[in-house]
Amino acid sequence: MPAPLRLLAEFLGTAVLVMAVVGSGLLGQALSADLGVVILINQLATVMILGVLVALLMPVSGAHINPAVTLVMAIRREISPGLAVGYVLVQLAGGVFGTVVAHVMFERQVLEFSTNDRLSLGTFVGEVVATAGLLALILTAVYQQRSHLLPLLVPAWIGAAFFFTSSTSFANPAVALGRMFTDSFSGIAPGSVTGFIGAQVVGALLAIVLVLPFAQAHKKEVS
Amino acid sequence: MPAPLRLLAEFLGTAVLVMAVVGSGLLGQALSADLGVVILINQLATVMILGVLVALLMPVSGAHINPAVTLVMAIRREISPGLAVGYVLVQLAGGVFGTVVAHVMFERQVLEFSTNDRLSLGTFVGEVVATAGLLALILTAVYQQRSHLLPLLVPAWIGAAFFFTSSTSFANPAVALGRMFTDSFSGIAPGSVTGFIGAQVVGALLAIVLVLPFAQAHKKEVS
Amino acid sequence: MPAPLRLLAEFLGTAVLVMAVVGSGLLGQALSADLGVVILINQLATVMILGVLVALLMPVSGAHINPAVTLVMAIRREISPGLAVGYVLVQLAGGVFGTVVAHVMFERQVLEFSTNDRLSLGTFVGEVVATAGLLALILTAVYQQRSHLLPLLVPAWIGAAFFFTSSTSFANPAVALGRMFTDSFSGIAPGSVTGFIGAQVVGALLAIVLVLPFAQAHKKEVS
Amino acid sequence: MPAPLRLLAEFLGTAVLVMAVVGSGLLGQALSADLGVVILINQLATVMILGVLVALLMPVSGAHINPAVTLVMAIRREISPGLAVGYVLVQLAGGVFGTVVAHVMFERQVLEFSTNDRLSLGTFVGEVVATAGLLALILTAVYQQRSHLLPLLVPAWIGAAFFFTSSTSFANPAVALGRMFTDSFSGIAPGSVTGFIGAQVVGALLAIVLVLPFAQAHKKEVS
Repeated sequence: MPAPLRLLAEFLGTAVLVMAVVGSGLLGQALSADLGVVILINQLATVMILGVLVALLMPVSGAHINPAVTLVMAIRREISPGLAVGYVLVQLAGGVFGTVVAHVMFERQVLEFSTNDRLSLGTFVGEVVATAGLLALILTAVYQQRSHLLPLLVPAWIGAAFFFTSSTSFANPAVALGRMFTDSFSGIAPGSVTGFIGAQVVGALLAIVLVLPFAQAHKKEVS
Repeated sequence: MPAPLRLLAEFLGTAVLVMAVVGSGLLGQALSADLGVVILINQLATVMILGVLVALLMPVSGAHINPAVTLVMAIRREISPGLAVGYVLVQLAGGVFGTVVAHVMFERQVLEFSTNDRLSLGTFVGEVVATAGLLALILTAVYQQRSHLLPLLVPAWIGAAFFFTSSTSFANPAVALGRMFTDSFSGIAPGSVTGFIGAQVVGALLAIVLVLPFAQAHKKEVS
Repeated sequence: MPAPLRLLAEFLGTAVLVMAVVGSGLLGQALSADLGVVILINQLATVMILGVLVALLMPVSGAHINPAVTLVMAIRREISPGLAVGYVLVQLAGGVFGTVVAHVMFERQVLEFSTNDRLSLGTFVGEVVATAGLLALILTAVYQQRSHLLPLLVPAWIGAAFFFTSSTSFANPAVALGRMFTDSFSGIAPGSVTGFIGAQVVGALLAIVLVLPFAQAHKKEVS
Repeated sequence: MPAPLRLLAEFLGTAVLVMAVVGSGLLGQALSADLGVVILINQLATVMILGVLVALLMPVSGAHINPAVTLVMAIRREISPGLAVGYVLVQLAGGVFGTVVAHVMFERQVLEFSTNDRLSLGTFVGEVVATAGLLALILTAVYQQRSHLLPLLVPAWIGAAFFFTSSTSFANPAVALGRMFTDSFSGIAPGSVTGFIGAQVVGALLAIVLVLPFAQAHKKEVS
């Protein structure tokens, strides 16, 4: 697939992902006063959209839709540094655009800053775990030559981590950036974003280290 | 499959879809005062019935059960204009019949007009997005020769869009028509239906434009 | 598989199904005052257990676990009349045993009569629709030679019908019998059971008539 | 895969499982006062994480992540006694570590004792049923040579049993141990743990007896 179409796919995919996260948070909030019910709505929308996006975009752009994934793929030289930079830029732009579309659909002002401070030691650890798990999962499926399972495994991991981390598992710098611009259920205050992205980078690097010995042992076995 | 059986399949499929949407809205309303819980019930029923219908009707009629899908397939000349008109008519009739059956099951009057005004700029954009995404998904799976994934991808998209659009993602003119005749959770006031159908047509056409370059690049790659 | 093991499988399968329906109703009731939340718990347990049972018992006994299914298979001569009678008897016994186990787990008296009157014109129609759909689905998957999809399609249909019928979709005489003996969320008063079973038989016969022309057209196409 | 990596996989897998169970219970409790909503959140996280763990760890360590599974596999001589002891030890350690990580993420003290007494005749029977079903499912899929279905069947069974047993289906001694150290929604008081583990061992042995005749009949058929 030519690079411009790959970039367009990454832009649209990340935009749709953030639109789904922010939009479903807004719908949930409008319908229920029980935050447990709101997060069920928010999580189910995220799980389902991730399944669709990963399945359809894998043959187009690799379905990164996440700068942490692109970072790891660049380190592994599965994507050129130049294209990787492009991927990250359009993912970040897509994340912000996703919030804009969600706000237009729910008739809020186009962009606003979140006042939802999320950063703490607990959520930092949560983001490290969520992102390490996500990347470990992807790298494992790849070395096991079962990446056709990723459209099920990625949503299942994120769906679980949505509920078991105190940070509700962003695990994605572009999603964190997009969610900075909504002062609603799914928002994250600007002051928390850098810490979240730092944790995500740590988690992504951790995943490489963690999966390496398994991948090497597998390679030895097969050969 | 002979045309009369295809038409019967499209009639029954659309009827069952609308019956599920309207019926589960009625059940939800009867059991819970929390609208977030009602929409969870409404969405899960819709997601599950779509999976069944798309899986079983694809080999019979192509499983359109949606005039927006039939419109796009007619433009792409994958269905003759005459059969397409037949499809749309039985889909619309099926949509209304689905509401009738749901009302009989829940012992309401057979048909009634909804008083639920839904049309606004936000829901118009929501319907454009929901329908564009649905058709883009179908066209992408088709050009990637993976239409066997549609029984999973269509419910996942509609399930996500149910929650992330302010319109709860009708994305289907026959469903919009059927839901006009129920004055309950899932209803839509007659005055909103034309605007919704307009948005759905815009979304469907947008999807054709959006997927075209990807399909062409794919074709080039393969050849 | 020898007949005694088939019968044991049908007994255990039906028992586990009813145990799941009755038990999850009891758990839901114990945890939430919101009946919408209770039915979500009740439905998810039913959907998941059906997936497991149909997948594992298909190679053993055909995974009927439902006298309505056995009736249709006997009419189609895919099971001998003698074995069919055996299937129905162990299914009914399994249904009652399932309630017993659920009651032991939740420390209620072993059996009690439900006081939950469910029969009305609306629920009668609901049971006809739910059972007709279930059998139409099974017969369609069979003639399309895709019965490997049944472990997904059966739970999806029952899960949807759980929410869109006013009867919460029993669609199974053995389940109706078992649920007669619990005076809790999932119970059904003895006076309603005969009407429900009548509706289920009507629905099952309706499915045969409905699917026949499609199966015949398919056969013609293939040959 | 070399034994140290298998042991690491079992440690991490069990840790992630318990982290998901305990963490999602904490999140649910923090967001909702409706315990039905809390258990929906707790169950969905458990179902999704189990799907990921079983899928990815099956080629690595067999994806036991449960001493009851390792016990049965040791009895069937599919794992050496020495390695089995190692598996159980790292599973137990992983269970406790999972609670530690969940507590760090939610900023609770690292370990605390649960005050949630769960043991009764009803929950004992519940754990026997939940564990017998889990192992019967695994042994059946294995003799039917369909263990590729386990990443779907295991979460579906545990997800159903979560709701239909009065014990919420631990079915796993390492999970029981880990949950002893959290005084929150998913906790279990130390005094209940031995009884639960006893029930799990009974259930596991019961499964072997139950599946044996089916496996033997299958073997005869095939040969």
